Amino acid sequence: MPSQEDMKAALQAYIDGFNSGDPAAVVALFAADATVEDPVGNPPITGRDAIGEFYANAVASGAELRLDAPIRGSHGDAAAMAFTVEMPAMRIRVIDVMTFGEDGLITGMRAHWGPGDVETS
Amino acid sequence: MPSQEDMKAALQAYIDGFNSGDPAAVVALFAADATVEDPVGNPPITGRDAIGEFYANAVASGAELRLDAPIRGSHGDAAAMAFTVEMPAMRIRVIDVMTFGEDGLITGMRAHWGPGDVETS
Repeated sequence: MPSQEDMKAALQAYIDGFNSGDPAAVVALFAADATVEDPVGNPPITGRDAIGEFYANAVASGAELRLDAPIRGSHGDAAAMAFTVEMPAMRIRVIDVMTFGEDGLITGMRAHWGPGDVETS
Repeated sequence: MPSQEDMKAALQAYIDGFNSGDPAAVVALFAADATVEDPVGNPPITGRDAIGEFYANAVASGAELRLDAPIRGSHGDAAAMAFTVEMPAMRIRVIDVMTFGEDGLITGMRAHWGPGDVETS
């Protein structure tokens, strides 16, 4: 199991890579057969190719991720964070939970946000 | 599936019941065979009796729960919240994810916090 520090660093690298406009840096945090369920309740996407396309589109949208509170760890293989996706005319409040493999790569991401967590301006 | 509004109201009722020193109000939000994994990585406890004992002890500790950001829903049967557990000489930063059944009761709670999310003063 990766250390708490390593998992939190991966979540921070996810935020930083996203905000730097570097989807490849984000995708490199994921295991080859990882799943992304964003939002929770939609069918997950699986594998680095699909995940790469997902983050390329997300970064291209011009969104920025702003942490709402410090990243949380666990006593297991998961870490979580509450953040806001800031877009030019929209914001989405999200809580991501990431699960990690022994090698420190993300094996699963679940993004909790619903229709009521989207604000338009 | 319960509505987003109902799931968020249940999470708010969880906070309010806890802070009112009313563990019975908290336990009433859970299904009879619900599981609570707090923290994630520890063996879950199962069923209202065990969950009742867990929250009786937690409330008796004098802890108060303070939301760090608005409660999040999803496009499925889950909602999540980031909060801080405030105790006389300690605080713990937590993200809870709750899963709901058709009847609107919580079927599973997973609390994400690790050793590094505890501050003593």
